[in-house]
Amino acid sequence: MNDPSPSIAAPDAACAERVGRYLDTLTKPPGSLGRLEDLAVTLAGLTGEDFPGVTPPAVVVFAADHGVAEEGVSAFPQAVTAQMVANFVAGGAAINVFSRRIGARLEVVDVGVASELPAHGIVRDRVRPGTANLAREDAMSRDEALAAIAVGRRAARRVQAAGCRCLIAGEMGIANTTASSAMLAALTGAPVSELVGAGTGVAGDTLAHKRAVIEAALLERAPDRDDPLEVLARLGGLEIAAMAGAFLEAASHRLPILVDGFIATVAALTACRLEPALRPYLIFGHRSHEPGHRLALEALGAEPLLDLALRLGEGSGAVLAFPLLEATTAMLAEMATFATAGVDDREAR
Amino acid sequence: MNDPSPSIAAPDAACAERVGRYLDTLTKPPGSLGRLEDLAVTLAGLTGEDFPGVTPPAVVVFAADHGVAEEGVSAFPQAVTAQMVANFVAGGAAINVFSRRIGARLEVVDVGVASELPAHGIVRDRVRPGTANLAREDAMSRDEALAAIAVGRRAARRVQAAGCRCLIAGEMGIANTTASSAMLAALTGAPVSELVGAGTGVAGDTLAHKRAVIEAALLERAPDRDDPLEVLARLGGLEIAAMAGAFLEAASHRLPILVDGFIATVAALTACRLEPALRPYLIFGHRSHEPGHRLALEALGAEPLLDLALRLGEGSGAVLAFPLLEATTAMLAEMATFATAGVDDREAR
Repeated sequence: MNDPSPSIAAPDAACAERVGRYLDTLTKPPGSLGRLEDLAVTLAGLTGEDFPGVTPPAVVVFAADHGVAEEGVSAFPQAVTAQMVANFVAGGAAINVFSRRIGARLEVVDVGVASELPAHGIVRDRVRPGTANLAREDAMSRDEALAAIAVGRRAARRVQAAGCRCLIAGEMGIANTTASSAMLAALTGAPVSELVGAGTGVAGDTLAHKRAVIEAALLERAPDRDDPLEVLARLGGLEIAAMAGAFLEAASHRLPILVDGFIATVAALTACRLEPALRPYLIFGHRSHEPGHRLALEALGAEPLLDLALRLGEGSGAVLAFPLLEATTAMLAEMATFATAGVDDREAR
Repeated sequence: MNDPSPSIAAPDAACAERVGRYLDTLTKPPGSLGRLEDLAVTLAGLTGEDFPGVTPPAVVVFAADHGVAEEGVSAFPQAVTAQMVANFVAGGAAINVFSRRIGARLEVVDVGVASELPAHGIVRDRVRPGTANLAREDAMSRDEALAAIAVGRRAARRVQAAGCRCLIAGEMGIANTTASSAMLAALTGAPVSELVGAGTGVAGDTLAHKRAVIEAALLERAPDRDDPLEVLARLGGLEIAAMAGAFLEAASHRLPILVDGFIATVAALTACRLEPALRPYLIFGHRSHEPGHRLALEALGAEPLLDLALRLGEGSGAVLAFPLLEATTAMLAEMATFATAGVDDREAR
């Protein structure tokens, strides 16, 4: 990729294999903890630790506005981006409530909000005050996309420096399902009708309009699908770029990444196109109700942990999945083995 | 039912409706928290509280042996039931590890283990030392089934008296997937080939043998499928009866119940056949990999929260789902409303 970046190591296959064998010595029928056992092997490979830890986790919410909001593609006015950032700072949003439950370090980063924000409680790292309207012009320049990726990288370095052991990236940006859907259509070639849904709640005529805006933008912007940075610059969003950067940086530090819903998954897909070595570091938290999410997950060969018909964003679905990662690490660290517990592990006959 | 029992009240529909309306005032698009919003309404209805609580939860693991183990239907010898109970007491099993993570009160009840158990750390409420071999005779008498139901009721009353706000019942009993599968076939009329699977890990010839044992037992015992107590006595298990009793008693105290996997779901189905008013109090934790679970869930119209290919039992899947209940109650209690947060909830255009 264009951005000179730290390299991402391959997972530690020997450690993963060792942990896979150790799982079969624990007091449970082999394989009976299903996906938690897969997760244990994955976490061991990523971290290179036989008894990996994921606590404390970090949640970074990247906020930015989208010029395309002026096309009327969202159920909410653009001002809601800044209002919700203020709600994050005050601690009243879903991501605050859920982050407190998992003891996460929560940081809100302004990577491109278009209106006034609270004076305190936000990391100010704004690249520009919202993207341009992708229905009329490129959302941003390549340099701005790179700058927003760098914002995400800085955030992930703060996460690492604070001693956090798992990264969750969330987003807030009115109209960002429109930008994400456009990017996903460009990156995969899938028809817009298959992947564009309600977002935070549009239907009927507004949904048809949203699809038409995206289809027109794809024709006008026409990014090269083999150039993910071009797709990001022409159709994307500043917070989407920042999430991609945060993922790439976290993986370079061997931090497990728990990916949220549709928008985070499009950011993850973009980042994997920029740097395929990222993919093994991504654990997928939940399957969103947004129709494009299925396609984005398929493009990544990903099977999320939860399927709860969520469609909020903010990182909320990944945070809800986090206790499964904690339970996985506790299983490895705390369960007795057949030998130490004196439990018979031979076949009955 | 035969057992004189406290009555189960219908959920509080007015409270459920009030909470449903309140959810739409919270700072998120309406419905965007998907199944957590449904859960919030369910919990409000069950408890009759606008801000229901589920903490602390209680996990009760009922242990008992099965005479049918002598038919060689399990991958593990019968002695493993008692060995695993000792492991529970020592704190080394999966259910211990996961229960600690959710701060649960964990109790192990001997409702019918056939061998020696540790002197301390177990509630001794044994009805008989394991069931008879259902392949040759009735597993137990009707009176013994009622006695085992009463064991479960006593356990749920201890849960209630200890101030716990959610009941999770788990089980340990070598060969109990055989008993549960036989019960499920009897209760639903479904063919054995569709619902019998690996249990804790049988395959090939052993699996074919397990199916043959169940089919023969169904013909020999031939319980009346409209008499759930007869099905339980002839084909069931002491821990299955106790789980059914615990569910019935918990519901009479308006305690939410988080149901574990296959065996717990068969117990729940049996209890619902005995007392249909129980059904609304049951929240289903996970979809097990045991093939009969799908059928048991369908018979109850249930859609579990998690689907993680678990097949351990002990209550482990329900305990893993519990953080979603906690997150649901926190969402209600802690999220800001549009009005208090100053967030615009009007349509954009």
